[in-house]
Order: sequence, then structure tokens, then C-alpha cells
Amino acid sequence: MATYFEIELDRLKKKLIHLGTMVEESLYRAIRAFADRHEAEAIAVIEHDLNIDRMEVELEEDCLKILALYQPVARDLRMIVSVLKINNDIERIADLAANIAERVVFLCRREPIDPPYDVFDMASNVQVMVRKSLDALIELRADLAHEVCATDDHIDQINRETYTIVTQAIQENPEHLEMLLNYISISRYLERIADHATNIAEDVIGLLEGEIVRHRLEEFPHEGGD
Amino acid sequence: MATYFEIELDRLKKKLIHLGTMVEESLYRAIRAFADRHEAEAIAVIEHDLNIDRMEVELEEDCLKILALYQPVARDLRMIVSVLKINNDIERIADLAANIAERVVFLCRREPIDPPYDVFDMASNVQVMVRKSLDALIELRADLAHEVCATDDHIDQINRETYTIVTQAIQENPEHLEMLLNYISISRYLERIADHATNIAEDVIGLLEGEIVRHRLEEFPHEGGD
Repeated sequence: MATYFEIELDRLKKKLIHLGTMVEESLYRAIRAFADRHEAEAIAVIEHDLNIDRMEVELEEDCLKILALYQPVARDLRMIVSVLKINNDIERIADLAANIAERVVFLCRREPIDPPYDVFDMASNVQVMVRKSLDALIELRADLAHEVCATDDHIDQINRETYTIVTQAIQENPEHLEMLLNYISISRYLERIADHATNIAEDVIGLLEGEIVRHRLEEFPHEGGD
Repeated sequence: MATYFEIELDRLKKKLIHLGTMVEESLYRAIRAFADRHEAEAIAVIEHDLNIDRMEVELEEDCLKILALYQPVARDLRMIVSVLKINNDIERIADLAANIAERVVFLCRREPIDPPYDVFDMASNVQVMVRKSLDALIELRADLAHEVCATDDHIDQINRETYTIVTQAIQENPEHLEMLLNYISISRYLERIADHATNIAEDVIGLLEGEIVRHRLEEFPHEGGD
């Protein structure tokens, strides 16, 4: 029979997964709004971010209550602390999806230009990372988490390439400067979403392997693109 | 007489403050390297970031050990959870200082141009925020923390203004495009450092007032600048 603690932990995980699903949807809608030049949809994503913020705060309070009530140790303690951290990363992904939506609003209000790089290709790579990091969390699968970590460098690479491509496009079409700077922003936001998905994956690995993984594989410096 | 828990908590706080001081110094050195066009100093900041990353991981492990060993409740529990979160924000400030240092390396390798905006003025505003957020933490002063939160909008405003100024400069001097994009990046990094200082201040307020403050005062959308 499940203990009260197990029931609470299960409820907590379900809430976190629900939040994760909401955030995935925000990202999906922001990218769709970009594809369809649908300003109202982009604004809806920005407005919805407030709900996600509220859920994050609630989830954090839940974690504190569980820590105080049940005083878990060992793996249970690590689980709650991981939920706290993953909760924060998920919320940051939602913020960045809202940032993308803000760029979409800007782009919708101007004459369209040819996208200087394949936004959908980059976005779909990042969406797969977010999906996998959440699946790794739900199913506690280290293999999926490692896949996410392995993809992060690829996204950094894409971001650097788009930076170079877009700066060339600005030189060729200086009249599109503002539009093109917004494309740089979108690429950078996607790259930061990939970073947060990687954080989640690293926390899942840490949870399963009992150690803190992050910073282990980092490299520097990054020229251009940031 | 202090309990073992109090001694451990005190040690934890000292470590966090030490980390905070190191990160403040990184930011200071990155800005000095910019002022002096001192590439070696900028590279030193980037390299030093690895030490800060290691300290962050160690501090997180300390928090987990204390939670497991002493199972604190109420305000003590909140304190440890706040240390976990603030630890993360401090480390992110160090990352952003290293990002600034990367831009400085880029700028050092090109012919200098007239800075399109007053980097030092913006940087010194942000440095004051970081300083105050750490002082608020050390001295548990809500008044300082509220001052930090109140300044954040001002920094957002400066960031938006620099964005407009720099895009105008690009239109007037398209040959300086790459240099000027680096100036946009520096402004954006400073603005994100201010966000993390605000997170720290909000955590201090939460700790003192027993509630989660963040997201309460947020506004949207941000046009330009991001």
C-alpha cells in the first residue's frame, strides 16, 4: 500500500508533468503563430505565460510543504529537490516561448521577408529535446536524458550558423535590419530553450545516478551567436 | 550555544557569500577588461568560470546533505531551499559575466569604434544591483531587496534604449555591423544579470516575508531589446 508520502510525491510528479505539457504546448503555439503569421495566437501565448508562472509558484510551495511534512531522505529528498529545479527550468522555457511570441508579434506587423534560415527545422529539433527531457523525467530513463545532452552541442552549432547567416543577410539587405535582428533573437531563444531541456535531462541523470552532472561537459568560448 | 545545524547553516551561508563575492569580482573584471581592451584579462574571466561552476555544484551537495541530516522545518527549511535557488542565480550571473568576457575578446581583436552607448553607466547600475542583492541576503534586509526589485524596470528600459540606439548606429555605419551586434549582446547580458539579481532579492523577500514574490510585478510584452 502506498504511504502518504508516496501519494503526495505522485501528485507532485503529475503536476510537474502537467506543467511540462502546458509549456510544450506554448512553444508549439508560438512556432505555429510564426508559421501562420497569426498575431492573436502569439499574444495568447504571451498572456498564457502568467498562468504558467502561477503554477510554478504553486508547485514550489507544494515541494516546501512536502519537505517540511515528510522530511524525506536519500533518493526521495533528491527527487523533491530535482522537482524544484526542473520546475524552474520548465517555467524558464515558457518565458522563452513567450519571448518568441513577442518577436512573432513584431514580425506580424511588418511586411514579410524570406526567412534567412530554417526556423522550423531548428524549432523542431528543440521541441524534440524538450519532449525527450520530459519523457526522461516521467519514465526516469537515463538513455533519453543522455540523448538530450548529446543534442545540445548540435543546437549551439545551429545557433552559431544562423548568426553568421543572418549577419550576412543584414549586410546584403540593410533595409531589413530590424526584421533580421528578430530572427537572430528567435534563434537565440530556441538555443536557450535547448539549454533548459539539457538542464532537465542532467537533473534526471543526477537523480538516477546520484550525482550532479552539469558543467561536466561544458566547453568555451563560444564565438558569435551566443 | 549554537546547535550543529546552526553551525552547518552558518558555514553554508559563508560559502554562498564567498561564491557571491567571486562572481561580483568576475563581473567587475569583465567590465574592466572591456574598458582596458585587455584580452588576456577577459580570457581569465572565462577560464575562472569553471571554478565557479565547481563551487556551485559543491554548495548544492552541501544543501542536500544538510537537508538529509538535519531535516529542518519552517524557516530553516525555507532558508536551505533559498540557498539552493540563490546559488543557481549566482552561478548564472557568473556565466553571463563570462559571456560578456567572450564579447570583449571579440572586440579586442578588431579596430575599436566609438561605443554606441555608455556601457559603464549601465554596468555600474547592474553591479550596484548585484551588490545590493548580496548585501540583502547577508544582512537579511528586506529594504535593500525591495530597492533591487524597484531598479529592475529601469535596467529593462536602458536595455530597450540601447537596442534602439545600436540599431540606428548599424544603419548609419553598416561596416561596423559585427562590432555593434556585440554591443547589443553586452547590453542584453547586463540586463539578464539584473534579472538574476532581482531573483535573489525576491528570494530574500520571500524568506523574510514567508511568501514567493516573483511574477507578482511582471509586465509584458517587451518590444525590442529583449
